[in-house]
Parts: sequence; C-alpha cells; structure tokens
Amino acid sequence: MARIGILTSGGDCPGLNAVIRGTVLQGRTVHDQEFVGFKDGFWGLVYGEAIDLDRSVVRGISQQGGTILGTSRFGPYTEPDGGPENIKRALERIGVDGVIAVGGDGTMAAANRLLGDGIPVVGVPKTIDNDLQATDYTFGFNTAVEIATEAVDRLRTTGNSHKRCMVLEVMGRHAGWIAMYSGVAAGAHAILIPEQQESLEQVCEWVLSVRDRGRSPMVVVAEGFKLPEMDEAHSHKGMDGFNRPRLGGIAEILAPLIEEQTGIETRATVLGHIQRGGVPSAWDRVLGTRFGQAVSDLVADGQWGQMVALRGTDIVRVPFHEAVGHTKTVPLDYYRGARAIFG
Amino acid sequence: MARIGILTSGGDCPGLNAVIRGTVLQGRTVHDQEFVGFKDGFWGLVYGEAIDLDRSVVRGISQQGGTILGTSRFGPYTEPDGGPENIKRALERIGVDGVIAVGGDGTMAAANRLLGDGIPVVGVPKTIDNDLQATDYTFGFNTAVEIATEAVDRLRTTGNSHKRCMVLEVMGRHAGWIAMYSGVAAGAHAILIPEQQESLEQVCEWVLSVRDRGRSPMVVVAEGFKLPEMDEAHSHKGMDGFNRPRLGGIAEILAPLIEEQTGIETRATVLGHIQRGGVPSAWDRVLGTRFGQAVSDLVADGQWGQMVALRGTDIVRVPFHEAVGHTKTVPLDYYRGARAIFG
Amino acid sequence: MARIGILTSGGDCPGLNAVIRGTVLQGRTVHDQEFVGFKDGFWGLVYGEAIDLDRSVVRGISQQGGTILGTSRFGPYTEPDGGPENIKRALERIGVDGVIAVGGDGTMAAANRLLGDGIPVVGVPKTIDNDLQATDYTFGFNTAVEIATEAVDRLRTTGNSHKRCMVLEVMGRHAGWIAMYSGVAAGAHAILIPEQQESLEQVCEWVLSVRDRGRSPMVVVAEGFKLPEMDEAHSHKGMDGFNRPRLGGIAEILAPLIEEQTGIETRATVLGHIQRGGVPSAWDRVLGTRFGQAVSDLVADGQWGQMVALRGTDIVRVPFHEAVGHTKTVPLDYYRGARAIFG
Amino acid sequence: MARIGILTSGGDCPGLNAVIRGTVLQGRTVHDQEFVGFKDGFWGLVYGEAIDLDRSVVRGISQQGGTILGTSRFGPYTEPDGGPENIKRALERIGVDGVIAVGGDGTMAAANRLLGDGIPVVGVPKTIDNDLQATDYTFGFNTAVEIATEAVDRLRTTGNSHKRCMVLEVMGRHAGWIAMYSGVAAGAHAILIPEQQESLEQVCEWVLSVRDRGRSPMVVVAEGFKLPEMDEAHSHKGMDGFNRPRLGGIAEILAPLIEEQTGIETRATVLGHIQRGGVPSAWDRVLGTRFGQAVSDLVADGQWGQMVALRGTDIVRVPFHEAVGHTKTVPLDYYRGARAIFG
Repeated sequence: MARIGILTSGGDCPGLNAVIRGTVLQGRTVHDQEFVGFKDGFWGLVYGEAIDLDRSVVRGISQQGGTILGTSRFGPYTEPDGGPENIKRALERIGVDGVIAVGGDGTMAAANRLLGDGIPVVGVPKTIDNDLQATDYTFGFNTAVEIATEAVDRLRTTGNSHKRCMVLEVMGRHAGWIAMYSGVAAGAHAILIPEQQESLEQVCEWVLSVRDRGRSPMVVVAEGFKLPEMDEAHSHKGMDGFNRPRLGGIAEILAPLIEEQTGIETRATVLGHIQRGGVPSAWDRVLGTRFGQAVSDLVADGQWGQMVALRGTDIVRVPFHEAVGHTKTVPLDYYRGARAIFG
Repeated sequence: MARIGILTSGGDCPGLNAVIRGTVLQGRTVHDQEFVGFKDGFWGLVYGEAIDLDRSVVRGISQQGGTILGTSRFGPYTEPDGGPENIKRALERIGVDGVIAVGGDGTMAAANRLLGDGIPVVGVPKTIDNDLQATDYTFGFNTAVEIATEAVDRLRTTGNSHKRCMVLEVMGRHAGWIAMYSGVAAGAHAILIPEQQESLEQVCEWVLSVRDRGRSPMVVVAEGFKLPEMDEAHSHKGMDGFNRPRLGGIAEILAPLIEEQTGIETRATVLGHIQRGGVPSAWDRVLGTRFGQAVSDLVADGQWGQMVALRGTDIVRVPFHEAVGHTKTVPLDYYRGARAIFG
Repeated sequence: MARIGILTSGGDCPGLNAVIRGTVLQGRTVHDQEFVGFKDGFWGLVYGEAIDLDRSVVRGISQQGGTILGTSRFGPYTEPDGGPENIKRALERIGVDGVIAVGGDGTMAAANRLLGDGIPVVGVPKTIDNDLQATDYTFGFNTAVEIATEAVDRLRTTGNSHKRCMVLEVMGRHAGWIAMYSGVAAGAHAILIPEQQESLEQVCEWVLSVRDRGRSPMVVVAEGFKLPEMDEAHSHKGMDGFNRPRLGGIAEILAPLIEEQTGIETRATVLGHIQRGGVPSAWDRVLGTRFGQAVSDLVADGQWGQMVALRGTDIVRVPFHEAVGHTKTVPLDYYRGARAIFG
Repeated sequence: MARIGILTSGGDCPGLNAVIRGTVLQGRTVHDQEFVGFKDGFWGLVYGEAIDLDRSVVRGISQQGGTILGTSRFGPYTEPDGGPENIKRALERIGVDGVIAVGGDGTMAAANRLLGDGIPVVGVPKTIDNDLQATDYTFGFNTAVEIATEAVDRLRTTGNSHKRCMVLEVMGRHAGWIAMYSGVAAGAHAILIPEQQESLEQVCEWVLSVRDRGRSPMVVVAEGFKLPEMDEAHSHKGMDGFNRPRLGGIAEILAPLIEEQTGIETRATVLGHIQRGGVPSAWDRVLGTRFGQAVSDLVADGQWGQMVALRGTDIVRVPFHEAVGHTKTVPLDYYRGARAIFG
C-alpha cells in the first residue's frame, strides 16, 4: 500500500479541505493508498511532522473554510533545515512514498525543484486570485467572488441612501479577476485592476456620469491597482500615528481623491481577509473534490511531476514545467468588454 | 439603428435579468442597437406586446431573480394565433428587426423553425438543470446548486442530532447535475439521478453502512430518479385526500421505503421552487451578462440562427441546428467518480 | 466541585450547542462546576450514558446546528427502564449531582415531575415554534424565521415571472409564530395560522385581489392551519401510491384548491426540516449562550425547580410549575394587525 | 383624510423601508391617512420636496436595504433655510398635516423642538448601534450583528489555518452592542468596547492564553474603543501618503501592537459600511413593520410628541422628552458576563 503525504502551502483558500477529503476518500476507496497530512505546509515536510489522515479525520470537512493541516509560507529550499536531503530523510523516517503539494505558483516551482532533486511529488494548483495560466479556474476564487459581490450589493444600498460614492477594495495583487467578476456581477460603475491603468481623471469622469444619471457611483478596485499619479512618495505604505506601516490599501487612497475631484462624498471599504475565510461555495467544494480525486489517480498512475487542472468541464494533467511561471492576467479584451458597460 | 426584441421563455432561472441587462447595455453602448422586451415569452412575440428597454429599465436588475419580462410556456407554433405570418406582422407593426430568444431546448427548436420561416432570430441557452450539450454551463444552475448545497448542510445537522436518515429531493427531470454537484459539495452519502438506476437494496446498503460508521445518512435524489421497483401502479402521481394528483415527489416515496427496509427513522424534504428563485449567484450574473453582451455582438454581426454558449472560459457561437436536441446527461464515468466516495 | 449533567430533549433547534457551551464555560470559569452531557436526551439520563464536557469539547460549537449531545423523544417516565429510582441510581453511579434539562413544554413537565421525585433539576426552555408562555422568545425561532423569510423572498421572484400564486408551508403545529414573522417580514399577501380560521373563500379573495393589482400572490401557511372545509375524511394524512401516509402537508392541500377556485396557477413548497438545521443566527447563539450562563448561575444558587427565561432584554428565573402547560399562541390582536396589511 | 409626511434622517439602517411600508399600508387600510415622503431627511421637510407614497410605491420594499426616501444629516434648525416658520410654510404649501420623523437621538431632539414650535410630529427611533435607552431594540442592529458574526466566522477559519490573531473592527462609536453580540455569538476571545477600558497588556494576555491552548485568537473591537495608552498624539487620525486623514480605525492600531507584544502574526479587518447595507434580516423587517404600523396608529390618535418603542414583545409609546438624550451603553454587568467566558 502506497503511503502518501499531503501538504497545503501559502495563503489559505476555501476548498482546501475538499481537496484533502477528495484525495483521501479516492485513494482509500479506489486505489491502494493511505495518507498522512504534513503540518503547516513545507514546514511539516522538512521536519517530518504529519498526522494520519484516515476516513474519520476527513469526514464533513469539505464545508469548512481554511485547511485542517495548517499552512505557512515556509519554503523547502530557503529555510536552514530545508533542502532535498533533509526532506528525503524525513520522508523515509515517517515512511512516506510520495508528496502531494497543494499550493500556488511558488509552491509548484518548489515542487518542480524537489522533483528534479529526486522527490516524487505531484501538485494541485491553488490561488484565490485565479491567476494561474494552466487551469481555467482555481478553487477559492468562486467563494471570494460571491463574498465580494454580496459586499457590493450591500454597499450599493447605503450608497444610494446617502448619495455617496462607495469604493470597495477586493483581493488581486497581480491579476484583477475578483474585481472583474464581482464588479460585473454587481453592476459596478467602474472596475479598476492591476492590468489596466486608468487615470484618476477617467475614474472621476465615470463617477460623475453616474451621478448625473441620478445614481450613486460604485467603484470596485483590486488591491494591486495603481493610479499613474501614484509614485513612490505617495505609495500607500505610509505611516500611522504609531510610526508603523499602514495596513490600508488603494481604496483608502482613492476615496478621498475621488471626493476631492468630484465633490461627491466618498467612502472606502477594504474587504480583506473576509474574502478568504468561511464556508466554501458549492462550486469550490466540487472543484476541490474533483482535484483531490484526480490527484489520487495521478499518484496511482505514478505520474510524478504533474499537477491537475481544469479545462472546460474536464480535469486534465499538466507537467509542472509547463505550468510554472505563467500568470493569467485579465486580458485587455476581457477588460474592454466589461468597460463597455461601465458607468 | 437596429431595433431588437428580447423574450424569455420556459421556466424562470436566476440570471435571466443579467442577460437582459448585458444585452441592452452592450447593444446601446457598443453597437447601434435599441431594444424592446416581449412580455411573457413567445406570447408577447405573437401578440406584439412589448415594452421599451432603455438603460434605466435594466439598471440594477442583474441581482434580481426571475425575469422582468415575464415568461410562459406559450409555443409560437402550437397556439391558435401563432405561426410565422402572424409573428412577422407583429414584428412589422412594432418595428422590430430581429429577435433574441432566451430559453431551453424547446425554445431553441422553436427559434430554429422560426428562422427557417424567415424570421431573424438568435438564441441564448437557458436551463437550470444544466442539461444542454452545446454549452459547458448554463446560468441558473450555479445558484440552484448553491441553494441545494446549503439545504444539505442544514439537513445534516438535524439528521445527526436525531440519528435520522435525511432525503433531499432536488431538481433534475432528465439530468442529475444539480444532485451531483450539491451531493458532492455537501458530502452526501448517496446521490440518485435519472441517468443511473440504483436499486432500493443498494440505497439501503449505503444508508446502513453510514449508520454503522456512527453517522447519519444523507441522500440527495434528483426528481427524475426512479427506483426499478417503481412501476406505473406505484408511480408517485398518486392521489391525495382530495382526489387530486399528489404534488410530492420521489423523496416522499423513497423515505418511507428506506425507513421500512433499514429501520432508521427517515425524513424527506422536497426543495422545489426555492431552487429557482431569488438573488442569483455572482457566477450566474457574470455568465448571464457575458451571454447578453455576446448575443448583442451576434446580432451586430448579422449571425441569425446562432446561439451563444460557454466553452471553457470563452463565449462561442453555435448554430441552432447543432445545438438543438442534444441533452447533456451525467456521464457514467462522472457518476462512478462520485460514487467511489459515497457512503 | 459540583458535577452537573446536561441533556437536550425533543426536536433539535439551532442554538442548543450555544446553550451547552455557555453553561460549561460559565460553570468552569465562574462557579466551581464541572459537566457531563447525557446522550440522546432522557435516554442518556436513564441509562447513565454521558460524555465529559470539558472546555475543549465545547470550543467553537456555538456556530453548529443541532446538538452535540444528540436528542430523542424518550420520556423518563414512559419508558420501561425509566422512573426516578433508576435515574437516581444512574446519577449516583456516574457521580452527577444535578441535571440541566434543555427542552420544550413536555421536557419541562417531566423535569418538574423528576423534581417532585427528589431529583435536583433545572431547565432551559426550547421550542423552535416560540410557543412557550414563560419566555418572550426561545432560541431557534429566530433562525427558523430567517430561513423561512429567505424562502419567501426566493419564491416571490419565480412567482412573479410566471404570474403564479406561491404557497409556502412553514413550521408551527399549534402556534403560527414562524408564519407570522416570516410572512410579515417578506410581505406575504396572506398568512394562515392554526389560531385563526380563514375560509378557502377568504383566502381566494385575497389571492384574487393581489392578482387584480398586477402582482403574484404569496401565501405563507403554518403546518397546523386547517381549512374549515377540511373534515377528517379530507385530512391531509392521505395515502400515497405505496399505501403509506403522505408526508406532505397543508400547502399541498391548499395549492390545488386555490388554483381550482381562482384559475391562477398555484405551486406549493413545504420548507420542512431545512428550518431547523444549520448554522444558527447570531441572535439565537447569543440567546442560547445567555441561557446557558444563567442556568449555570441557577445551579450555583441551588435554585432547583426553576428554568431560565427571557423578559425584555433580561434573563429571569421561572419556577417549572408556573411555566409548564402554558402555550403562547398568536393573539387575535397581533394577527389582526398583520391582516390589516395583507393582500 | 389626514395627509402625513415621513422623513428618514441620519445614517441609513436596514429596516427603514419596512417602517415606511408598514406606516403607509396601516394608514391607508386602517386609518383615513395618506402619505408623502420627504426627500433626504429634514432637507425635504425644509424645502417641501416630497413624493407621493401610495401603495404601489411601497410594494416589496421591506426587503431592500437603505431608504427609498434618501437620508442626510441636514438639521432643521442649523441650516440657513431651516427653522419652524419655513417648515410650516412648506407643510402648508404641499398640504401636509403632520410629520413622522424616523431617526436617531439627534433627530428625536430636533423633532421635540419642532413640536415645541408648533409642528405636529411623532417619531420612530433608529440607531444601528442599538444605543437608545427608550427601546429594547432598534431595527438595523440585528442585521448588523448577523453580518458581523458571519465575518467573525469567516475570519476564524483563515486565522486557524495560519495561526494568526485576527482583529475585526465593527461599528459602535459610543456603545459596544454590535461588538458584544457578534463577539458572543461567534465565540470571540476578546471583545473590546468603548464602555470598558482594557489595557493592551490585558488584551495580549487573553491573546496569549488562547494561543497557549492551541487556538488562534479572535478579537472583536468596537470602533469607539480606546486603549488607555492612546493619547492625542497617538490618535488613529494619522496622515496617509497624500497628507489626508487616515480612514482606518482602532483595529489597524491594535493589530500591529498585539503582534509586537505577543509575537503572533496579527491581521486587522475593518468591516465598515458593509454592516449597514443590504437585505435586512427578517427580525429587522418585522420590527420596522410593527414600528411603522404603530406610528400610524399614533398619528390616528393625535398623540403628537410621542415616539414608538419596543418593550419586551410589545410596541409602546414614549414621549420625546423622556426618550431624548439617554444613551443605552453596555452595562458593566453585561460586559462582565461575557468576559467571564473570554479567552
């Protein structure tokens, strides 16, 4: 019986537990596999810290947010005790034959390197920002979009009552998918994403045109969006009263600028960590489960060095080296399509 | 300026209003189109009953369930006043150049026939059951799955407290997609769909094995599922105390049978119309909006006789004659994949 | 250190786990109390089947539906092994000094009898129907109302799209509080409750007047409502095709009658067990927590024979003998107030 | 027929539309009243800007957040065109016999002064913070608590996965009711409110004790809470990179301090305007409706100078002069009760 270890690495994401559950149930029922779970991502791999994952441990977990294994940003090559030899010794000590790494682009790059260093590893892609080229969608993204959309729906009613402009900041450091989806879903009047620069002047023009039609402007902005007017000196990493970096984001920069330029009372909301926590959407649980089942199949077929991915309605296999390093940003066409119905 | 009429036909679906909004905004902003909306599906087309759809009418409607145009099962060929000549006269009278029909397989078949009879028509596919071959997903399905999944989550806690078996009936007359997705998402112990016969004995075996592991069995059943034991005489269209056909469904047949065979107290819930109403999920609003924008483009390109569809992350065009009549049922493989982790 | 046993009896209710958690945390932190939980209501009391309830067991449970202790309708006096002497022996055997019984009117009556037979017992009232005179509100009711209201909101959109009359059946065997609250919250056009007879003619008059104003009628009916036209022969406990009692309820009787009388297509939905399961509302968690803390105080004060109750914003103490047997039905005045804005 | 004007003043609140609907339906059905709605609070009263409120205008609005009338912080005595004489002229010009003012403590104080100046006015209390002494609860509070509680539930899962301390800031400038209710409901490990000072040292002690038990600390803080360590120089009204006052709040002060003192990675989330927008809870819609119906009765009885209030389950009448100026803060006892089960 093969004994496989699973780890979840990087920022947590709704659907991680569905992956764990899908893997374990598939492996135990269909293949001759048993599982352990490494604690806190690569940390558990390096130190051989793992828990047994039998059927009873994974029961009912797909509806829980977060990951029952814990996660961290610990890198297998960057930490003092890391490196392939230590990891091999840890795997041998706890009797693990192969590793399933669930994580983002960095995790897949590390996994690829581990593979090159002789460690049997397969992958499951994870990014709440949905910015991985190799897969149509990643789990967690759908939940984040639903939460962000509900937030826009809520902000709209208070905006309308006060004739205010409301600015909502959502996740998306390098890719604006959450902003695009939630903005389109909720009928935002402007959607600002890292991929496309828009000037403050343009934003204010949209805002004013909305007001002129008797409505209250709703702006959705991804955290990675930057105004061309923003140079280093005006970076939003200012200092607060305690001489510490500010936690706030682009929405808190943008709101007072819009208010100043347009004369419309403007309020900022930063959605933050609420987007990544809590009960996963059904969609994310299904995708996570399917990824989990498929990665168990991958292991059974001995296809080390591959990860699972979604293409259309199918789960496919993609080699690490093809998947790594390709960020899926919002294409200009897609943005223009949404922009056509702004305002 | 082209003047286009939109109609929504058949059962209502979350996302219909997003389609209408997306079409109108795209047509008015990007193309030289204006729109009217036919009332109550093909009825409004036949009688030329339509309302003007300007920007203000469609504002904020994407978050509303149902359809602002109304819908019906009125057939353009089956009703006395129907037929292509009457429709042409109605279109001429109200000055409409082409028709966008939003509906299911029957609507697309009727649209195809109207096309053959010289009426310029394009289509947007709609089925809450997600059972149309030509498109990866239809809008409304996602919302229905989220609602059904939340229902399973809720039933599970009461089932556990009372050590009962809970049976939830969801939509799906010919295809079990809603049952598959919600059952997998919520970790149901048995999923019963029209495509795959399972005997009462098998169902009870699953139920008992769950009980033996100390858990409370959760069964999700699509309305179109039939037990092999069910013949015509035992059809669930029995009579109630008022000598009228019963409204209940397969869950109400199944629950007492499971209770009888297993000795486990069993309760049925029929989710019914709740699945198709209310605020659409963000996913369905985005898909509806994209379909709406794309069908406006289709009209602008004069591509009559085509409908829009989702393939992967792209919106594509499919001729009616290719799309019509191909039901997308749950493939045996897919079902077996889920069944592997039942119980 | 006092050692106290908790049991949850009767139908489950959102908020039970908050009670358990509140009791245990208060008792361990503020008083010198430790706790066990009896399994499955009075069954665990009679057989001395209990689990230790330390801090770690109750952590995070307030957001879970159902009861971690299990529940049943087992009666301490009606079952063969019941009776005060057996119970006293069981308590002695497992070293329990007193009992906290969480349950409805029947549970409080049994608790009162146990008290008379020399068993130290206090109570926490529980009824999802909110029909206990001694307390302003019971936990679970709020969650049920929120779920029922969302169901009405959803049904309304599909009703409007199809111009149908929608009938929703909610819980409430003897008291129509859930129907009243959800019906008023969602703007139902008729609310039918056990306390107030309305004729089919009157219901149809409301339905028709709504239709005549261009809207789609929405009827909310409590399961305990009876038409005056319904005699025994027409009871809704008819037989289905398998010669078993029907599971459906008054909504399934009412819908075809309304359709027949008014000519308006009418659909029934029976909400059923969904109302009592799942994540409790914040309100019910707070009320459950406060009840739990207060009942621990009650025990610390040695006030056996009392139960906790809500009056305004205060938690008060009420002797069993005052609380038992007083059903709080919807007063005629209250009903008339809502009826004034029907239709 | 009496002709009455309604206005909504101050910050918007879920349930305002239920008040408007309840008033209009009660007044038109039960009493001989008709209604207009003043635009944007007292602004509409001063300038006589009002819309007719017939039955069709208020249909279906109780499930909408915000207020269909608009609101503002315009004061009837503080603005140049204000004052009783101008208002009387405006009322006469548009033929309004009396005014229903829906608002907070400031609005009730202004209403009381208008009454003294001869304008017939009655009141409906409104504060999302629930800090009005005269009523057990105000509408809007329940919705805010449910939203805040869901946010805590969500943050908890991501906190657990990363072993982080999460700090959530909720509304409550002078009273910590939202923090108390959502914190208790979601099992927060520390609840910080304006009424009770706690030192940073104490907060960190709670946080560390939670971590030592292997859990991830969850802190809920009301916006009005201040650390004793915070003097003017350390006020959170610092400057951002654009030399504008920061929008962030106490959570953004607290999080880095906790991280510094405890060494536990800590993240802040400011819930902000999301708490006051969107679909009202059923509870708030019922309370709003009852307040609306009761204020129509108040007008019918000519009881000018009174406002409606909730006491237990009853709607009562309270004279303005008794209601005004009495803030209902969280009593020390109540806070200590919750604090007993912290950590």
